[in-house]
Amino acid sequence: MKTIYMDNAASTKMDEKAADVMTDFMRKNYAVASSQFSHRPGIIVKDALEDARHTLAAAIGANDDEIIFTSGGTEANNLALSGTAKAFKGKKNHIITTKIEHRSVKESAEELAEGGLQVTFLDVDNEGFVDLKQLENAINDDTFLVSIQTANHEMGTIQNVQRIGRICKAKHVLFHTDAAISFPSVKIDVNKQNIDLATFSAHKMHGPKGVGALYIRHKTPIKKIIYGGFNEFNLRGGTENVPAIIGFAEAVRQFKESDTKKVSELRDLLWKMLDENIEDIHLNGTKDLSKRLAGNLNCSFDRIEGESIVLHMDMRGIAVITGSACFSRNLEPSYVMMALGFTHERAHSSTRFTLSKYNTIDEIEPVVDALKQITVQLRQLSPVKKENRNIS
Amino acid sequence: MKTIYMDNAASTKMDEKAADVMTDFMRKNYAVASSQFSHRPGIIVKDALEDARHTLAAAIGANDDEIIFTSGGTEANNLALSGTAKAFKGKKNHIITTKIEHRSVKESAEELAEGGLQVTFLDVDNEGFVDLKQLENAINDDTFLVSIQTANHEMGTIQNVQRIGRICKAKHVLFHTDAAISFPSVKIDVNKQNIDLATFSAHKMHGPKGVGALYIRHKTPIKKIIYGGFNEFNLRGGTENVPAIIGFAEAVRQFKESDTKKVSELRDLLWKMLDENIEDIHLNGTKDLSKRLAGNLNCSFDRIEGESIVLHMDMRGIAVITGSACFSRNLEPSYVMMALGFTHERAHSSTRFTLSKYNTIDEIEPVVDALKQITVQLRQLSPVKKENRNIS
Repeated sequence: MKTIYMDNAASTKMDEKAADVMTDFMRKNYAVASSQFSHRPGIIVKDALEDARHTLAAAIGANDDEIIFTSGGTEANNLALSGTAKAFKGKKNHIITTKIEHRSVKESAEELAEGGLQVTFLDVDNEGFVDLKQLENAINDDTFLVSIQTANHEMGTIQNVQRIGRICKAKHVLFHTDAAISFPSVKIDVNKQNIDLATFSAHKMHGPKGVGALYIRHKTPIKKIIYGGFNEFNLRGGTENVPAIIGFAEAVRQFKESDTKKVSELRDLLWKMLDENIEDIHLNGTKDLSKRLAGNLNCSFDRIEGESIVLHMDMRGIAVITGSACFSRNLEPSYVMMALGFTHERAHSSTRFTLSKYNTIDEIEPVVDALKQITVQLRQLSPVKKENRNIS
Repeated sequence: MKTIYMDNAASTKMDEKAADVMTDFMRKNYAVASSQFSHRPGIIVKDALEDARHTLAAAIGANDDEIIFTSGGTEANNLALSGTAKAFKGKKNHIITTKIEHRSVKESAEELAEGGLQVTFLDVDNEGFVDLKQLENAINDDTFLVSIQTANHEMGTIQNVQRIGRICKAKHVLFHTDAAISFPSVKIDVNKQNIDLATFSAHKMHGPKGVGALYIRHKTPIKKIIYGGFNEFNLRGGTENVPAIIGFAEAVRQFKESDTKKVSELRDLLWKMLDENIEDIHLNGTKDLSKRLAGNLNCSFDRIEGESIVLHMDMRGIAVITGSACFSRNLEPSYVMMALGFTHERAHSSTRFTLSKYNTIDEIEPVVDALKQITVQLRQLSPVKKENRNIS
């Protein structure tokens, strides 16, 4: 049975060319980039590293030396928050983020709060949008950083990054955006959008696991969090993972706007068919599909648990996930869903479908058919009858 | 011109089988391990991760759940020092390390010292050995951690890890050893050697870049340093880099004692021939080659700068490095050399040759011949004449 993989927000299939380039390099070039002053094998690796850096920088309108490669989006988010907090220690003591950030931002902020930093967690509306008035009002003289995801990893809601950037610039605070899940399908232009720090992840965009990057605007006060030498402009210790970095750069090069269009169209079709064929289905997050990540669909189903759906889908070879409690390791339903004001029932019944350029139109009908059968079947078994309770 | 690569302490050529396994997995399996409860692609990845964890654990006599995969040896060393310091905060406030640790330990310790932690940097003798009496005397009631490298990355000097472990156990302090450069050629048995924390790096042992591990004995007080979810027993946020992790595990599996023996013999031959053929050459570190890392040779040459040697070697296709100042980005000579009590001249003239299982006997003679020509040539140009000054 061929798997229909619709869990691309977790991780994506590697782009074939990116995999080829990385694999070939990994086998042939094994010197470290920092041996560039000692021997030719080092020069080859250093040149490849800088070429990759230029590729990513050019894609977001940055200078090459504003890109720091990290072990992934999580480390980049940790560096953005903890690194600026270290630099501002004793000077400013307040940051602003939202209630729906990725755990790597959320937990970094919580850890910093435990250490005495003031943290404001902004609310979002029931579609996942940040209230920009609330943001403006939250910024005070002690604020040094605003960290808001470009788009949400569960619900796909895309924030108005340009307006957030404008607010931050006017108020003279740093603006960090976690673009790990959204780049490059949502375009980033660090100057046009007044972004000071931005997080990127390779494996969310058909690059390899184990590599990400943080864009850091010139003169941004920031200190390293991983110690061990002078690599990455003295902002990240450790041997540069150049094979993965050039795989990342190749994935950036292979990106085509037309892929985003194709993925959007597939997602739109999937939603249209689900909406037509399945009873009592609810779209979570914004109804305006143009304001969602191209491949993101997140639905809830009255009177059904998300885990049942996910397991029955898996039996049919379809890979999706749920925001339900039993699938999270802290036994709580998705905090993102809770922040959108959903009931526990709605969060428990949520199912996330995330598509990529490797999904095809042939996969849409089997998914809709499977979900149709599964919802009918599970509802027959459900102790909760339609007339008694709906989730929304 | 074929390169003769003798910079294996910086990084090694990937084992062919490890590269095959990693490449194949990377192309086929792209789900995240934490989706194991949602779908089969996740189960496959999670199983591979746990299988790799078992391989490393078994190789050092540990339990599987005592292994935390990280982005490399540097992050593992940061976690060992900062993670235990966080856990002991408000309880104990003193750690002990040495003056010749890798930068990832040295700079972590310096950063913690800036934050108020008491740090003792032990001296080493002129062969690079820690004075165990000084260690014993340095441990006090406030000490919670001793961090000493299994073997030095520049000089190859192997410490008496078992005796250090015994001292730490008797004094009830944690013992961390950075085995990044020495494992698996220097065997680790965490129980026999009373090791509480140990750092490993894949790319130093023919595995991929971007992955390492920290062994953490059960019940060791430690807190995470990279936030973002519950992965790695809630001790390391971020998506597990499973392709690299299984590449690492395959490199562990491919290790053979006979490789270490072969590498030692090549190194011994190299030293014998250099000593016989080159005037005024000095072995840096211990003269007892059995107490050095198998592939390590570090020599200084009277009246010659290391950078000249390295560049002339490179012109002949031979990749080695120097501990000289101009090759370090802070313009200071190797702090390891300084700690061994060497003069600036001796540090400046040092050249490190590090061999691996991929070096061959055919490479020894060309290296000796090249060095012979280079030393004669450079000494003819040197303003410092033999009768005037020697370095040692």
